[in-house]
Amino acid sequence: MRLDASPAGVDQTAVRRANLARVLDEVRRGEVVSRADIATSSKLTKATVSSLATELIDRGLIRETGLRRDGAVGRPGRSLELDGGGITALGLEINSQYLAARGTDLAGRVIVERRLGFDAMRADPETTLDRLAAIAREAVTELAGTGSSFLAGIAVAVPGLVDAETGRVRYAPNLEWRSIPIAGALRERLGGDVPIVVDNEANLSALAELHSMPQPAADLVYLTGEVGVGAGLITGGRLLRGSGGFTGEIGHVPVDLDGQVCGCGRRGCLETKIGLPAVLRAAAPDLADQDVDPQEQAHALRQRAEDGGPEAMAGFDEIGRWLGIGVSVLVNLLNPEVVVLGGYLGTVAPYLVPAAMRELRDRSVAGDAAVCRITASTHGFSAAVRGASSIVIEEIFRDPLRIPAAEKAVD
Amino acid sequence: MRLDASPAGVDQTAVRRANLARVLDEVRRGEVVSRADIATSSKLTKATVSSLATELIDRGLIRETGLRRDGAVGRPGRSLELDGGGITALGLEINSQYLAARGTDLAGRVIVERRLGFDAMRADPETTLDRLAAIAREAVTELAGTGSSFLAGIAVAVPGLVDAETGRVRYAPNLEWRSIPIAGALRERLGGDVPIVVDNEANLSALAELHSMPQPAADLVYLTGEVGVGAGLITGGRLLRGSGGFTGEIGHVPVDLDGQVCGCGRRGCLETKIGLPAVLRAAAPDLADQDVDPQEQAHALRQRAEDGGPEAMAGFDEIGRWLGIGVSVLVNLLNPEVVVLGGYLGTVAPYLVPAAMRELRDRSVAGDAAVCRITASTHGFSAAVRGASSIVIEEIFRDPLRIPAAEKAVD
Repeated sequence: MRLDASPAGVDQTAVRRANLARVLDEVRRGEVVSRADIATSSKLTKATVSSLATELIDRGLIRETGLRRDGAVGRPGRSLELDGGGITALGLEINSQYLAARGTDLAGRVIVERRLGFDAMRADPETTLDRLAAIAREAVTELAGTGSSFLAGIAVAVPGLVDAETGRVRYAPNLEWRSIPIAGALRERLGGDVPIVVDNEANLSALAELHSMPQPAADLVYLTGEVGVGAGLITGGRLLRGSGGFTGEIGHVPVDLDGQVCGCGRRGCLETKIGLPAVLRAAAPDLADQDVDPQEQAHALRQRAEDGGPEAMAGFDEIGRWLGIGVSVLVNLLNPEVVVLGGYLGTVAPYLVPAAMRELRDRSVAGDAAVCRITASTHGFSAAVRGASSIVIEEIFRDPLRIPAAEKAVD
Repeated sequence: MRLDASPAGVDQTAVRRANLARVLDEVRRGEVVSRADIATSSKLTKATVSSLATELIDRGLIRETGLRRDGAVGRPGRSLELDGGGITALGLEINSQYLAARGTDLAGRVIVERRLGFDAMRADPETTLDRLAAIAREAVTELAGTGSSFLAGIAVAVPGLVDAETGRVRYAPNLEWRSIPIAGALRERLGGDVPIVVDNEANLSALAELHSMPQPAADLVYLTGEVGVGAGLITGGRLLRGSGGFTGEIGHVPVDLDGQVCGCGRRGCLETKIGLPAVLRAAAPDLADQDVDPQEQAHALRQRAEDGGPEAMAGFDEIGRWLGIGVSVLVNLLNPEVVVLGGYLGTVAPYLVPAAMRELRDRSVAGDAAVCRITASTHGFSAAVRGASSIVIEEIFRDPLRIPAAEKAVD
């Protein structure tokens, strides 16, 4: 009977994949480690570690170095460090006001960064995708220019609800896009067979925060702060995706049922209170109707706050109060350790957080025990595109077999 | 060097624990299986399975049977089935209007069930815990009466926020309890050393639903419907506990900031719209001020709905609409596959769900793709106490080593 052969084979590949990932992770965390160090910490035998290390070297993921951890020069070729200069990842972002690209190598070193003002709210999807593809092509060329580069994947951040399996945007309220097959459209424009994945900007931003924390929080909420307000939810160390991938729509929680009409057509959504247009109206009405990059608007807003005019200060206090109401919903439902403010919310955080914290303390059902920190993202408006490039990298760390082994050279 | 001995020992126990759990689970799922069946499906060797089965038999968790799966009589003593008649679990519940107990054996067969009307909203915590301990003692006696019984644990459901690690209720709004050490207080009253855990009623009810589904939903929300309204959140197949265990407070999401004052002191919480007192006021005002068991009130409400009076119907429609608003918040944030209505919400579900579904369809940001089922719990008012007994049982299936091996008898 050969029926068992295939499942057994699958299991062995799974074990090898997990062990390769383990050794690769040890090298990443240790920066410079020996095979013996890895054997000790992983509890694998030295022979197994050696075989795994050889395979990772063949795949261009790690390399031998003469350096020892203490900086002294040891027996050459015995210590290991992350290689991956030849392995690259590309993150792309479609924002309502700009397009962006970010290419890194395996260690996360930035090789290319592009950001282009673009009014995706007025452009049709075809034009937007043409421009995005043009930016992607330039970035790919630049990544390839660094040497014998292998592009491991492309991830695209979009401000909408995404069917992650098909790479299709189901609905992007502020772009007024419905059922746009982003992954397929980019594949057509770019050719080739590099994997292309698409995800929501808030999800990717939350992952960018998580991956850049020295001690990743198991329960974190990232709030986007642009025209739209969405949440990326990390619970138990993982992205909360729900049954179909449609989570985190905090911007459309109704907080004032008789309030203003939202971009989604409903009344009194949180977004009508703390979205960028609302805060501009409240704190800097003369800037409200200008079509400019949200990052510039955020800086103008911050300037107003620093100037300390009474209109601006009253506006920020009011926005902070609504932000606190929104955060209290997340806290009472999800009990996160930290809420990270992205976009303009992060830029003007010092002027919003005091009022928001007052409201949160008042509204936390569990009292002070559940009151979490509210903090500004350190990534400004680049969190989503950072998250996009980082998920490609993290996927390699999860499954090193994605990277093909080099063809054997003659010794 | 013997330094490695201890970690290696720990790993071996963990492996044995996992393998015992695997074999025990195969027996549970298969009902009647042979060692050979288990070896095939678990990919463990027959010798390993035999050794694990012997250990599970020693611990009283499984037993040999002459029956084969097809009902025919096979070689006696070769097939295995769940034993566990001698292993019992006790669930307890403190509700604002009643106390309950439910004792089962390992297979979930109910051995004892008690429910006692008790106004915990007016009684002080000491009196309530005295009564609960008395009910627990009776139940333990009855469980022990079934033979050489081993009580594996006690779990207590409470309508409040619980610090699960210490078994302390931090805050139970409708009982007005703050910082009551439930586990410790019961331990004092009951003596002995049986493990006592405490958890929120909504969490335990959600687990009861999950454990009773033929195909457990990975993403499920359970809504309690009594004086208070809380949510038990299952995401990715697990209870969402957040950073401190304070999740699911959907009842205190503000839906009408100028609305009525809630039991928590804030205005316009969802609970003021769909809690049992609110629905009584809206659909059966003459029943509103009677202090009776919520189950009886729910049945009276259902009777009103069936009678179809215009006041009642308008009331149910209004409550259904608010329910839909509350469910839409959960759907837009968490994208569950199903929302299960418990308590009175389940009893009168047919009269609430149409209006709730209309509201949910209107408010689902992702449109129909994210609209989930809203269904009535099949457990009525017993979900929490069922969940309590079932978590004790599930903990045994996760870690069979919790059950001590029988002392060896002379052959």
